[in-house]
Amino acid sequence: MQDSYDLRGIPLDKAGIKDIAMPLTVFDKIKGMQHVTARVSFYTSLPENRKGVHLSKLMNALNSNSKRILTPATIKKMAEEVSDGQDVFLRIDFTYFIDKQSPVSGTIAPMDYRCAFVAELKENFQLKLEAKVPVMTLCPDSKALSKYGAHNQRSIVTIQAKGDIWFDDLISYAEKSASSEIFQFLSKEDDKFVTEKSYENPKFVEDLVRDIVIKLKDDTRVKWFYVDSEDFESNHNYNAFASFESKE
Amino acid sequence: MQDSYDLRGIPLDKAGIKDIAMPLTVFDKIKGMQHVTARVSFYTSLPENRKGVHLSKLMNALNSNSKRILTPATIKKMAEEVSDGQDVFLRIDFTYFIDKQSPVSGTIAPMDYRCAFVAELKENFQLKLEAKVPVMTLCPDSKALSKYGAHNQRSIVTIQAKGDIWFDDLISYAEKSASSEIFQFLSKEDDKFVTEKSYENPKFVEDLVRDIVIKLKDDTRVKWFYVDSEDFESNHNYNAFASFESKE
Amino acid sequence: MQDSYDLRGIPLDKAGIKDIAMPLTVFDKIKGMQHVTARVSFYTSLPENRKGVHLSKLMNALNSNSKRILTPATIKKMAEEVSDGQDVFLRIDFTYFIDKQSPVSGTIAPMDYRCAFVAELKENFQLKLEAKVPVMTLCPDSKALSKYGAHNQRSIVTIQAKGDIWFDDLISYAEKSASSEIFQFLSKEDDKFVTEKSYENPKFVEDLVRDIVIKLKDDTRVKWFYVDSEDFESNHNYNAFASFESKE
Amino acid sequence: MQDSYDLRGIPLDKAGIKDIAMPLTVFDKIKGMQHVTARVSFYTSLPENRKGVHLSKLMNALNSNSKRILTPATIKKMAEEVSDGQDVFLRIDFTYFIDKQSPVSGTIAPMDYRCAFVAELKENFQLKLEAKVPVMTLCPDSKALSKYGAHNQRSIVTIQAKGDIWFDDLISYAEKSASSEIFQFLSKEDDKFVTEKSYENPKFVEDLVRDIVIKLKDDTRVKWFYVDSEDFESNHNYNAFASFESKE
Repeated sequence: MQDSYDLRGIPLDKAGIKDIAMPLTVFDKIKGMQHVTARVSFYTSLPENRKGVHLSKLMNALNSNSKRILTPATIKKMAEEVSDGQDVFLRIDFTYFIDKQSPVSGTIAPMDYRCAFVAELKENFQLKLEAKVPVMTLCPDSKALSKYGAHNQRSIVTIQAKGDIWFDDLISYAEKSASSEIFQFLSKEDDKFVTEKSYENPKFVEDLVRDIVIKLKDDTRVKWFYVDSEDFESNHNYNAFASFESKE
Repeated sequence: MQDSYDLRGIPLDKAGIKDIAMPLTVFDKIKGMQHVTARVSFYTSLPENRKGVHLSKLMNALNSNSKRILTPATIKKMAEEVSDGQDVFLRIDFTYFIDKQSPVSGTIAPMDYRCAFVAELKENFQLKLEAKVPVMTLCPDSKALSKYGAHNQRSIVTIQAKGDIWFDDLISYAEKSASSEIFQFLSKEDDKFVTEKSYENPKFVEDLVRDIVIKLKDDTRVKWFYVDSEDFESNHNYNAFASFESKE
Repeated sequence: MQDSYDLRGIPLDKAGIKDIAMPLTVFDKIKGMQHVTARVSFYTSLPENRKGVHLSKLMNALNSNSKRILTPATIKKMAEEVSDGQDVFLRIDFTYFIDKQSPVSGTIAPMDYRCAFVAELKENFQLKLEAKVPVMTLCPDSKALSKYGAHNQRSIVTIQAKGDIWFDDLISYAEKSASSEIFQFLSKEDDKFVTEKSYENPKFVEDLVRDIVIKLKDDTRVKWFYVDSEDFESNHNYNAFASFESKE
Repeated sequence: MQDSYDLRGIPLDKAGIKDIAMPLTVFDKIKGMQHVTARVSFYTSLPENRKGVHLSKLMNALNSNSKRILTPATIKKMAEEVSDGQDVFLRIDFTYFIDKQSPVSGTIAPMDYRCAFVAELKENFQLKLEAKVPVMTLCPDSKALSKYGAHNQRSIVTIQAKGDIWFDDLISYAEKSASSEIFQFLSKEDDKFVTEKSYENPKFVEDLVRDIVIKLKDDTRVKWFYVDSEDFESNHNYNAFASFESKE
């Protein structure tokens, strides 16, 4: 049984539940909250003298809190409920939607962003927000070398940050730093706008990451951050990548 | 036990092994053969009066033929070995490489294509070859509407065909029909070539599929075919898709 | 432009949007509706004389109906809105949750099922409901041969059906036919119940599929169905599979 | 252009190629070498005053070394070729096969393991070997509580290690620590053996990880290691997980 004594003398860093699907709600600055289909991993550390972790204890904490709106406060509360002096690790992944207005026609349609809460409770409680943001990048070299045109592509920016900010802020920093942000509904005028803007604004994957780094460094709410981008380049069958992590 | 009598009176269409990894070799027109890491699914139909299929019988056929070079003939032989009057379904997926020479610098590098044999033995033996081909497409609308530039992206073309042809032929048809084919090694001159060629050659996903259909219809070796393309468009976070299946 | 005339004489089977994420709601027999994160593909056929499909027309239909609760009626309406005499294909995938009560402790926790609407509008409108149901299977051979124990595993049953039924019905048929249904919250007593029930009730993948086929054949609401199961068997690194499709 | 001067003052941790497919060969203790389909990511750090990394320089190093058998020495050489004073990160993933003999019938069939080289060149060169090993675990609680049977499942153990060892060693440690190792070809006698062995040898995910930790600590060749296991438990639709990382 999980409570029994273990003689091997080996404490474990993490033990618990991986990848359970749950219908949850997440705080939304504009609408108050939004419903999400979450995927949750929930671990504690395990002392050397204990045989195992009770998955049902972790399930209870998840289940009994599943009606609360996820905020930094409710996530901290869930971590504290199961800690009992042990480290706690809680990761909650979900697709977060923002209603975006296209740039010329002004049509509103929801854009999807894969987001996550990544929480640790050790001596202190630490929460990272993570957002994956699809944007458009256009290659400066390809533009400079070619008589016309320039290869461009969808890129996925990943930002993680600690501090008093929200997903919308991280998403905005990525979108503002790309060759162009993208939109789910595009009229002909919107498509023209996005095409021309990206051509006027070429970015290597390194440029995109650096321009986001500058914005995050300038934001005094942000205590720590990590940025990467993966560009699914249209001229070969592999991706370009760059990353930066701040010193804490 | 699998051999025992079943009283429910329900014959099954397929029963067997799904997704086993095997190191195999595939016939290659240029090099004679190439080594692949294959993923194999291998089923037979099951008569209404039999309890189950012996997975070990299917494994034996796979294992004892694993040193042969995969060709239409060896695949037919494997299907016949396990049939015993039943239908047989055999699908073998693998990454197939072709050494491609870049268009200006002439540098050679291997390009990867996800390919498959899709075989059925019923009254007759039928074999489909499948190839997934990464190419570049550039949007005609975006080019026509914009002062400069045009959004473009990686697209994945899928071709299935029956007839006396090989993967290299299917891959060539897809690459010749795109805005531009793509290359793993690109010097600055190669990148300029690909960028300008794609700009001169805009294609909707529908154009790309239709231009491949024309080539496959004109090839008298091809008895049946299916084509689709998925364009990972750079201006929004979803894909454009088109498909065509020939009448047999 | 997409509306212009095409001279190649090749009609396409499908053209449109693949894999767009949307926040939608689905009818729920018990709660009235539930919020889902959907993934939508939406195609029409394309006449031989037309250049392309307007993605924005499909987006409009999606967007303007996104507040309606998804039912067979609203899905039919969306298909009809974009048809204009062409075939329409609409697939909507989402995770559907059912509150399940564990068998002994009676604890309630949400179980996730990957479900889909698969709709076609040709001469008639046809709608398939699809449900993927995780269950437990225990190998009859392993039980019969061994002095104690029997290998068992998670299996994923896929059912598609046409007719006046709902996801909950399909899910129930799969769960009632397995060695045991499974639960997200399991006390020790629940785990004992599931373990013993599955041992008393061994099923090959073929047995599981056949027992579901019998239930679907007996259900007069069901006009057509397809069933398969993939068993992630614990004694080797590949899966067992069986399938059955009804004649229409 | 990538060589030009950058004024933003932001050095990047990593920039380069992500997920390129290559046909490579890997050293094999028994056969000398084996052919693999590799997926490679290859980055360098980027000084604050340089605009970007040349992907073609990284491609050249990959391409010109693609005929060498991958060993710690050849991986170090590839990293050094591109370094030019910068940090280098090289990850090569592939499926590695070992011919395994089933325990009673003695039948030989290849088992697949997802393996990787994870290399860093900073002040020193450091190489981690990674192996993912499918095994069988049987739940001690389920066995203890139930009149008969016990739920069991496929688990995937991940081991990373630094030191003078090889993939086969890591794989062996995982297989020897599980409730039972698994085999691709299983006769009835083999299946009985595996079923009974696993029933005699129940392991929580925590037990499995701890028993591997003991073996790695006792191996004086190993300088650092990480172990986790994910158990795809058959009684619910989520996984159990545990992990341990050694202090360096």
